[in-house]
Amino acid sequence: MANKSNVSLSVIRRLPRYYRFLGELIKSGCLRISSKELSQRMGLGASQIRQDLNCFGGFGQQGYGYNVESLHSEIKDILGLNKKLDTIFIGCGNLGKAILTSMDFDTLGYNIIGIFEKDKNIIGQSFLGLKVLSDEVLDDFCKKNRPAVAIICIPKKAAEDMSDELIGYGIKGFLNFSHYDLALNNDNIVVENIHISDSLLTLHYRVNEAIKES
Amino acid sequence: MANKSNVSLSVIRRLPRYYRFLGELIKSGCLRISSKELSQRMGLGASQIRQDLNCFGGFGQQGYGYNVESLHSEIKDILGLNKKLDTIFIGCGNLGKAILTSMDFDTLGYNIIGIFEKDKNIIGQSFLGLKVLSDEVLDDFCKKNRPAVAIICIPKKAAEDMSDELIGYGIKGFLNFSHYDLALNNDNIVVENIHISDSLLTLHYRVNEAIKES
Repeated sequence: MANKSNVSLSVIRRLPRYYRFLGELIKSGCLRISSKELSQRMGLGASQIRQDLNCFGGFGQQGYGYNVESLHSEIKDILGLNKKLDTIFIGCGNLGKAILTSMDFDTLGYNIIGIFEKDKNIIGQSFLGLKVLSDEVLDDFCKKNRPAVAIICIPKKAAEDMSDELIGYGIKGFLNFSHYDLALNNDNIVVENIHISDSLLTLHYRVNEAIKES
Repeated sequence: MANKSNVSLSVIRRLPRYYRFLGELIKSGCLRISSKELSQRMGLGASQIRQDLNCFGGFGQQGYGYNVESLHSEIKDILGLNKKLDTIFIGCGNLGKAILTSMDFDTLGYNIIGIFEKDKNIIGQSFLGLKVLSDEVLDDFCKKNRPAVAIICIPKKAAEDMSDELIGYGIKGFLNFSHYDLALNNDNIVVENIHISDSLLTLHYRVNEAIKES
């Protein structure tokens, strides 16, 4: 296996797509696939696919292609999905609830151990077999249970107020739906941002350009 | 104003962030800001900020910095937010409902004109002052109303089955929450994907690397 630590973020961001596609190929009974075929199905260049997968050691064989199951299992291993990450979920508004109920956290390698909310009407409700807790007990909970990841579905101001505390508990990774830039001034955490409104703004620009060109 | 059509996607993707930050500065009463200050607040390099904004004509004045309101208004103009895009919303499951009820579509430049769902229990419910319609009337609706954008909150298979039809109606832009790659084989549409599970997988990898290094 090659050294994984120097792999660029753009390669890493493509790994989930490979993982998904290969999972679907397995379901459809496909045993092996050439990089050319994979390229056509995924809309990526065949040489890019070979380069990407070479970053992690290169699993293809010339004239044979890739063994779908073993490549899928290798990528699962690279993503580290066999080891679940203990995770807290903060914010059970509409979006938070939707994410809690629609994601298959277990398959994605996450173990949700606590759900927190400040709205008294929501505290005590159950999701994923867990009762929603008051954010007032977050401190005790984190000191005791040491989560590795936090999923943040709260407004910007609340995220800003809470961020130092969360990082202080030793939380290493954030899936951030808020508009607060958690990574700012914090080099030792990793953050994946999902900014739906930013995507809508980018789309707006691109649609206007597409309409002008057509 | 510079030619906007050759601006790279990575610059365009940063515009919503500038727009958000400048909006907050206006709210806090800030009238002008240097690229250095903007850089510190946003966690971007000052020279990158100057370069980005130069792509669109360059609004800063040496020794003065940027006039916050006029820069905000210029970016609003560049993003095209003054002209609302007629938009249909497809899929009112948990995630769809959460997005319908949590986004400020009007401010983001979108005019939601129709909401569609196939589940009979959801058809007839109201969101944003619109009754949810059956996806069986999508065809008639689109031929009559010619939406420019579709927001897709449906499973992969449903998105795949529907995509040719939607593109056939002349829909130019998609905000795609499904795992179907809409842009594949369709060069003349623009797609912004939000793949929450892919972000979770990428985060998993990055957290593991961060734990190893610490």
